[in-house]
Amino acid sequence: MTGPHGRIRPDPPYWAVIFTSQRTEGNDADYDATAARMERLAESIPGFLGIESVRDIDGAGITVSYWRSEAAIARWRDHPDHLDSKALGRAEWYERYELRVARVERATGHHS
Amino acid sequence: MTGPHGRIRPDPPYWAVIFTSQRTEGNDADYDATAARMERLAESIPGFLGIESVRDIDGAGITVSYWRSEAAIARWRDHPDHLDSKALGRAEWYERYELRVARVERATGHHS
Repeated sequence: MTGPHGRIRPDPPYWAVIFTSQRTEGNDADYDATAARMERLAESIPGFLGIESVRDIDGAGITVSYWRSEAAIARWRDHPDHLDSKALGRAEWYERYELRVARVERATGHHS
Repeated sequence: MTGPHGRIRPDPPYWAVIFTSQRTEGNDADYDATAARMERLAESIPGFLGIESVRDIDGAGITVSYWRSEAAIARWRDHPDHLDSKALGRAEWYERYELRVARVERATGHHS
């Protein structure tokens, strides 16, 4: 799990980008380095609220990033470094993925 | 990864319930059995569209379930079996969790 898990609690509404993916096999070092770089890039974008990411041993992953506004998501989407990484992702790293942009309307939590 | 990963592609808008959690240690058999039962229960509810779930080796998990409407989510939320499992989840299985209800506005995918 990447990011300040369980500590992203802005007041709704805000936005979530839900990225579900299946990794291809191999290229882990390159992939991990790029994923870490993309996370730092996201953090630098105004309106970024947080990110949570899990990948299991079979290469299935879900990453959810949180954003203040659709404009912030557009800044992230259109960043040149991000566009380069997305092209690599399609060509080499992901067998498949789905990307969903959603508006968070309600949030609750539990912390024992 | 649980569910028909990469194959949940209804036309937006629809709804996503984003559940991020950190498991406590132990009780895996009970937990896994209940999680599987809850997934079958969700599938039986009108308006259920699909579910994707990943947990990593450190017990961090993200589950996203997809629903046609807020009314469908309410049917799921208020189902007696689900309420029982949630109480167990808070008491025993989750160190913490966050639950977010979001309206999916756009979706894109890639399949190589």
